[in-house]
Amino acid sequence: MFGVTILGNNSALPAYDRHPTAQLVTLNDQQFLIDCGEGTQMQIARYKIRRSKINHIFISHLHGDHYFGLMGLITSMGLLSRESELNVYGPSPLLDILKLQLKVADTRLPFPFHFYPLEKEGLIVDGKKFTVETFKTQHRIECWGFIIREKKSPRKIDKEKTLSLNIPAAYYERLKNGDDYETKEGNIIKNEDLTIPNTPPLSYAFCADTIYDESLANKVKNVSMLYHETTYLKDLHERAADRFHSTTIQAAAIAQKANAKKLLIGHFSSKYESIDAFLAEAKEVFDNTDIAVEGVTYRVQ
Amino acid sequence: MFGVTILGNNSALPAYDRHPTAQLVTLNDQQFLIDCGEGTQMQIARYKIRRSKINHIFISHLHGDHYFGLMGLITSMGLLSRESELNVYGPSPLLDILKLQLKVADTRLPFPFHFYPLEKEGLIVDGKKFTVETFKTQHRIECWGFIIREKKSPRKIDKEKTLSLNIPAAYYERLKNGDDYETKEGNIIKNEDLTIPNTPPLSYAFCADTIYDESLANKVKNVSMLYHETTYLKDLHERAADRFHSTTIQAAAIAQKANAKKLLIGHFSSKYESIDAFLAEAKEVFDNTDIAVEGVTYRVQ
Repeated sequence: MFGVTILGNNSALPAYDRHPTAQLVTLNDQQFLIDCGEGTQMQIARYKIRRSKINHIFISHLHGDHYFGLMGLITSMGLLSRESELNVYGPSPLLDILKLQLKVADTRLPFPFHFYPLEKEGLIVDGKKFTVETFKTQHRIECWGFIIREKKSPRKIDKEKTLSLNIPAAYYERLKNGDDYETKEGNIIKNEDLTIPNTPPLSYAFCADTIYDESLANKVKNVSMLYHETTYLKDLHERAADRFHSTTIQAAAIAQKANAKKLLIGHFSSKYESIDAFLAEAKEVFDNTDIAVEGVTYRVQ
Repeated sequence: MFGVTILGNNSALPAYDRHPTAQLVTLNDQQFLIDCGEGTQMQIARYKIRRSKINHIFISHLHGDHYFGLMGLITSMGLLSRESELNVYGPSPLLDILKLQLKVADTRLPFPFHFYPLEKEGLIVDGKKFTVETFKTQHRIECWGFIIREKKSPRKIDKEKTLSLNIPAAYYERLKNGDDYETKEGNIIKNEDLTIPNTPPLSYAFCADTIYDESLANKVKNVSMLYHETTYLKDLHERAADRFHSTTIQAAAIAQKANAKKLLIGHFSSKYESIDAFLAEAKEVFDNTDIAVEGVTYRVQ
């Protein structure tokens, strides 16, 4: 299972029961939180997400609608006697803010807490079955996007074959890595006779807040699902540019240029009571678009 | 109109759709916010309160459940192009936190912003028709309570008399201040013949987070309404003391000793799904008790 659950789909001003940015990414047994606007811990409770399972939190930038809920979430994790470690990745001043707030509250977290400042583009987490990369986006202040990728061997076991040949399961890991198999009698069985091509690894790119920037398309090339902000409808492209945000058709153009399989749009301005028009406009340019609705999980496939 | 609207009645961990502490106090044309836990700006929207009218915000202490919503509220006021000044009163490190968060976001507030560090007990705001005093409570960290009082002249105009004697309205202010009136003919009319005793000024005391502390009763003597925290039911008095909180009957005892006219209780631990038992227990000791329910306005009378 690879999915993205929307906890907040609105831009800076909360409105119409839409909340500031927060997304929960589930990848098999891993849960990642991307951004953590005010009220994220309440949204986590509302949608019955187990916050104890979140081990990695990524903060794109230090505008409040992307991180004002972080301190509350971390404090609550402490009050709930969390023991497992928590890893937070974000712009370096975030650590000063967290430290200062913990200090004035005389709070010591009961779990190991690690902070990783975002400094350069590239790999930031190298997990057993996933990787996370970061890249810069163009916003009014320092801002980072994230790509979460499945890690997969290029080939997987052809169970029917390995069972019929009595190949021990202990050898499977080597087969996935491309090794041939040598029988007790000394016969070599070629790897391609024991494995089949794996499905390509899936990936999710979160483009954070950004002005329309064609160079982003290269950074998120070929992802399975691209989240791109659409703060405004297409008619307000000047206002979008002024404020370092994007419109519907700009997001769709990036998805197209990036050859993304699917586009997810969000970060809607509070000037819009209804967000239906966003979907229609984006689809004009890129058909496989979905609109981020709070509480809904979008599968990466 | 003098009233207190509950925006959050829960303690540190949000639970059962109960929110961290925040109260809106309305006194005639003034609106004061006391404490501002995470999500307060959403609660303000939910209960259709005009945030533009809030000119004074009082923060009792720097545990997150009492101020993590402040930065979001202030930022939103800025985004909404507020122009009128905002006055914030709280423990001095709060200013460092606010400044740091504004700096990293590269945000300049479009309205005059004044911060007043709480340093000693006594008067902190001397308005035309109200005063605000602060006093210390005993909590795990520096913590302050607040008393908001109507300001009233001891006597008010007896309109029937002043009209029948053709006393000009311009003179009313002096009559309220106790002056006698001299007619054109040089006759003195005594003040007590032109005025009647005013109703005593009403007052609301917010006791913040506190361990059971009898000396509080003196600090909030004779208030019209006393808010006192009741984090726990009476059986958990040891846990309450350990954590510098109070129980139902302790809050009620303070109300009784203080000769408060009415008691309002809140700051319920998230261990309680239902809060009904709190009211029953407090009433055993102090009958005129009300339980703080979110969205409800309690009149100070």
